[in-house]
Amino acid sequence: MSIKGNAVYAQSGGVTSVINASAYGVIKAAMEADFIENIYAGLYGINGILEDKLIDIARESKEAIEGLRYTPSAAFGSCRKKLPSLEENRADFERIIEVFKAHNIRYFFYNGGNDSMDTAYKISQVSKELGYEVISIGVPKTVDNDLPITDNTPGYGSVAKYNAVAIREGSFDVESMHRDSTKVFVLESMGRHAGWIVGATGLAATSEKDGPHLILFPERDFDQSDFLAKVDETVAKIGYCVVAVSEGVHREDGSFLADSGLKDSFGHAQLGGAGAAVSDIISRELRLKVHTAILDYCQRSGRHIASKTDVQQAIACGEKAVSLASEGKNGYMPVIFRESNSPYTWAINEAPIFEVANREKEVPDDYIREDGYHITDLFREYATPLIEGEDYPPYKNGLPQYVRLKKALIPPKTK
Amino acid sequence: MSIKGNAVYAQSGGVTSVINASAYGVIKAAMEADFIENIYAGLYGINGILEDKLIDIARESKEAIEGLRYTPSAAFGSCRKKLPSLEENRADFERIIEVFKAHNIRYFFYNGGNDSMDTAYKISQVSKELGYEVISIGVPKTVDNDLPITDNTPGYGSVAKYNAVAIREGSFDVESMHRDSTKVFVLESMGRHAGWIVGATGLAATSEKDGPHLILFPERDFDQSDFLAKVDETVAKIGYCVVAVSEGVHREDGSFLADSGLKDSFGHAQLGGAGAAVSDIISRELRLKVHTAILDYCQRSGRHIASKTDVQQAIACGEKAVSLASEGKNGYMPVIFRESNSPYTWAINEAPIFEVANREKEVPDDYIREDGYHITDLFREYATPLIEGEDYPPYKNGLPQYVRLKKALIPPKTK
Repeated sequence: MSIKGNAVYAQSGGVTSVINASAYGVIKAAMEADFIENIYAGLYGINGILEDKLIDIARESKEAIEGLRYTPSAAFGSCRKKLPSLEENRADFERIIEVFKAHNIRYFFYNGGNDSMDTAYKISQVSKELGYEVISIGVPKTVDNDLPITDNTPGYGSVAKYNAVAIREGSFDVESMHRDSTKVFVLESMGRHAGWIVGATGLAATSEKDGPHLILFPERDFDQSDFLAKVDETVAKIGYCVVAVSEGVHREDGSFLADSGLKDSFGHAQLGGAGAAVSDIISRELRLKVHTAILDYCQRSGRHIASKTDVQQAIACGEKAVSLASEGKNGYMPVIFRESNSPYTWAINEAPIFEVANREKEVPDDYIREDGYHITDLFREYATPLIEGEDYPPYKNGLPQYVRLKKALIPPKTK
Repeated sequence: MSIKGNAVYAQSGGVTSVINASAYGVIKAAMEADFIENIYAGLYGINGILEDKLIDIARESKEAIEGLRYTPSAAFGSCRKKLPSLEENRADFERIIEVFKAHNIRYFFYNGGNDSMDTAYKISQVSKELGYEVISIGVPKTVDNDLPITDNTPGYGSVAKYNAVAIREGSFDVESMHRDSTKVFVLESMGRHAGWIVGATGLAATSEKDGPHLILFPERDFDQSDFLAKVDETVAKIGYCVVAVSEGVHREDGSFLADSGLKDSFGHAQLGGAGAAVSDIISRELRLKVHTAILDYCQRSGRHIASKTDVQQAIACGEKAVSLASEGKNGYMPVIFRESNSPYTWAINEAPIFEVANREKEVPDDYIREDGYHITDLFREYATPLIEGEDYPPYKNGLPQYVRLKKALIPPKTK
């Protein structure tokens, strides 16, 4: 029998197009669960718990809750806070348990990536030590797709689709223009440590002419002269070249290309990006006209072009989190399991958060072409079903109608 | 009675999401017109005519022609070539007429912006002088929306929608994250001389919290201390700030912010963008965490989020071009006429190319808020119907299925 009590859901880390779809899954399931009395949300993630600022989900309209399905970003506010260990920072954990106790919170759902799973794991551990029973469940989320065990992470399919669409469209552009204008188009994708996102641009290339022609992975060292030779070769062969660059691309000595060494007139280092750095190298060394796109936040919040698969999996992970809670699976999280590639079928399984937190899954060697500059068929097989399907938000006056919540707080019960 | 003969269509200038929709309109109407025998296209715009490289449209599949409706970029190849006057460059014009004669081309449809309309106009004038009758018709196209007379230009509605969607999504992102991460999000839009595109981001703001909070127009001088005070004020008030920057934003002395004065280690000037420059100023002077998105080509080729109004008008302008040809209206072009705002209705009229070419339409003063940092209701009334409606391309394997033409050339008849 599950203990009866209240639940709190909170969002953490960089946002995605579908983290609110997971929130929707958690909330809908929690509302139907008889062991959960009230469901609250932390305002700005774990901050809201530390500060006793809990959003009363019951005061949100039915339309707003439905709108979470198709609203990007973190509707309850996210955070970048990572809790140190109990030994280093007993006060924070005692405070969390104090707030949980005061509001009779017995279920904690933490929706985030690597660092957030670490927090969810720590809470799953300390509750016993501090003598208050609470079930802590992780809900996976990250555009980076770098969590182990789960086949992919909610958020990845949509950012992958966004990037693949952007490079297809940008490639058509430069193909049209290269005759007497731009010769090279550089697009910078997110993913500082893992090349899952930049690799997804490769899905847009189905013939020799299709961009991207070259992909720069953070899993490979950047070799400037080798890279420039490839750009040169591509331009000589088809007239232009499209390059997808991970923000995390680095030299052999580990230094990021984004640290471009550029200085402004005051001598301050310039805030550069890897895309600008790569474009600058091409322009300077090959004397070619280059254009650069930096998608930045637009890619991870680009809900208008979300993957349907991704939306469905995000909701399913949210629902599963509540079913794990009902089974008392403290310290567990839902993970996506790939049953088959063709047709693509999947199921939601579970795994101990401990096995997922604080470990990063890079793109495997056999997913990257031997020369390091493109994806293999294995990557293609893996990622194609994840970008499959469209799930358009509703529009009004030409714009997507995303919801903003009231975020009314319940009265604090602690100081 | 119209003279019977062949027609050539060509694309010029920067591409858009819907220039191929205009091509579709021209081609479909030309195929039905009894005064046009064969329809060809210039390979890379006017270059294809100068080089006697004419694409045989009859050899494209029916599916490919249909696909032009929803394929971004310039399917026949575009160019950046602007012809000097007949006095300065008689040879080019004689060459064009030579190729026209050799292929019995009596109709010339030139699809482009300001510079291209100048070319179409010159050809409309010289044909008589050089003793060969050809009807030269302009077809308007430019994301910049800077052509006079026409209420708007095909291409603008879609880039406006792309930018408004991007800033809405990016604003939701930073609103979620600002508590302990990014405080300012800067998005750079195209439009070197006119602020139509950057102004369209303003459509996304319907409440005080909505980004963009500040818009930097090329029609206003950039005043650094005044701007920084506004950013500071916005962050103090709502916790974060979203800034939309035109690539053409400049200081009082006329110097572009994009010329940031940054130098690399070799002393070469850095290829910057206005967005990076503005972000750098905010980061350095206000010590706030800033993120920057540069949409670049993705915005003007972002057909996946095209405006339905824009697609319809682009097709209608193409069709109208053929009907102007049938009336022998040498030196004319279709223009979009706004019949009413609410409900928004429009018609395609005509205007002499001469009145349109080589003049730029900036954003009027009363479309820009008095302090210079946002749009007024007049801008909103003007631009809202232009981004109205969605017109999604077909998808396969998660990606839009844009067409690439065969571009088979007819045998050259000149040397």
